[in-house]
Amino acid sequence: MINPNSFTNGIAVRAACRDGSWIKPTCGLAGGFAQANLVVLPKALAFDFLLFCQRNPKPCPLLDVTEPGDPMPRHVAPDADLRTDLPRYRVWRDGELVDEPTDLSRYWQDDFVSFVIGCSFTFESAMLRAGLPVRHIELGVNVPMFRTNIACRSAGVFHGPLVVSMRPLTPSNAVRAVQITSRYPSVHGAPIHIGDPSAIGISDIARPDFGDAVPIHAVEVPVFWACGVTPQAAIMAAKPPLVITHSPGCMFVTDIRDEELAVG
Amino acid sequence: MINPNSFTNGIAVRAACRDGSWIKPTCGLAGGFAQANLVVLPKALAFDFLLFCQRNPKPCPLLDVTEPGDPMPRHVAPDADLRTDLPRYRVWRDGELVDEPTDLSRYWQDDFVSFVIGCSFTFESAMLRAGLPVRHIELGVNVPMFRTNIACRSAGVFHGPLVVSMRPLTPSNAVRAVQITSRYPSVHGAPIHIGDPSAIGISDIARPDFGDAVPIHAVEVPVFWACGVTPQAAIMAAKPPLVITHSPGCMFVTDIRDEELAVG
Repeated sequence: MINPNSFTNGIAVRAACRDGSWIKPTCGLAGGFAQANLVVLPKALAFDFLLFCQRNPKPCPLLDVTEPGDPMPRHVAPDADLRTDLPRYRVWRDGELVDEPTDLSRYWQDDFVSFVIGCSFTFESAMLRAGLPVRHIELGVNVPMFRTNIACRSAGVFHGPLVVSMRPLTPSNAVRAVQITSRYPSVHGAPIHIGDPSAIGISDIARPDFGDAVPIHAVEVPVFWACGVTPQAAIMAAKPPLVITHSPGCMFVTDIRDEELAVG
Repeated sequence: MINPNSFTNGIAVRAACRDGSWIKPTCGLAGGFAQANLVVLPKALAFDFLLFCQRNPKPCPLLDVTEPGDPMPRHVAPDADLRTDLPRYRVWRDGELVDEPTDLSRYWQDDFVSFVIGCSFTFESAMLRAGLPVRHIELGVNVPMFRTNIACRSAGVFHGPLVVSMRPLTPSNAVRAVQITSRYPSVHGAPIHIGDPSAIGISDIARPDFGDAVPIHAVEVPVFWACGVTPQAAIMAAKPPLVITHSPGCMFVTDIRDEELAVG
């Protein structure tokens, strides 16, 4: 039985994923190191998807993109192997989930391009360090996520609505949260909306499209950030012949410290 | 004879370029609107170049990238036509300059992808507004630019050294310049170096590789920013069969206000 506290950096988490001894979510592991979403696509779709990310940087903040066929994310973790170093993957064919393997050996292709996309853990850590409450973490549930009526800028075959995550805050904490998360543009950055859910097409804040509902107290307002589910939803809508992603919560742990992602 | 002061926005500049009445540099036109570098490449090279820009965001800050064949930069200037709306272009075949047309009608291909890349005019305007001196503007010459010994991250066929521009400042103004230009990550952002030129492989600060030398006063230090010549140098080194760029100084004037590019 592995003690999660023994994972003090990305190298340790990745080694345990690689040898099969860690196949669970990575939340809370290797504190201080940035975790990331993974999308793996054949080269034929890679230009369109790279363009989709370029055009929608808030939901799709790229931390690294590999050369075709190269399984090593040389910028964010030079010794890592994206085929083995996540706890669990999802394999999608024509938009259907067909497998959830713990390594990609059976599926790897020489034309695969891997996209390492920033995740909200980094800015949530910064909020917690600043003393702001993060409701879903307090409650031990998943962050509530909602489809909005804001269209992403499309790129080739990829298009879809912006998906957002929501964290309730008092108005003064919402101001602090804008300041704090603005420092992390490569992990979704500043909120995209504060307040009225209906203004961005959310009809019922108590019923998220993904994740779990959390209570919003009387003095609080909902604060919305662009969410990494956005690119996944755009990919699934395009139903590509083959795409691989991380399994929810089973992120890629990089060698980049959260603070290296801060600007200003 | 057109009065440059009559150009109050990008639409006006672009219309004059389109009808052939303006074929000169755009410096100082349409104050407050962001100007941009242009690179046009066939689709076959576009993934590699997009990846090069993603990996080197300080020298290659993308403001917009078109769909293949689409001459309209729909994010930064929805009604513009990149084939006609710059004063002058350069056409390169196998790394050799072969033409400097004022429009691209003869050269346009259905597989062309256009890259609109942020330029330093935006952060220089912000420096001037904050009362900081910008030496080459004071002197009416081109900014001095230098090849460094810092390698860009390569991508496919594209590789090369980081090219920097230099502006001399007093140390306290250098601190202010860091603060001010950090707000504009999509137009090169914060400096990459302050002080000793030899630390980044520049042997003679009085002899720039591109542009004009400017004096550095006794109390000043040289401050270096990533420069938009970097991607052009990487492209020329790769000697692609065909690439089109703007002619030096003859930029694409967007509809984006400089202040829209500010963060934080």
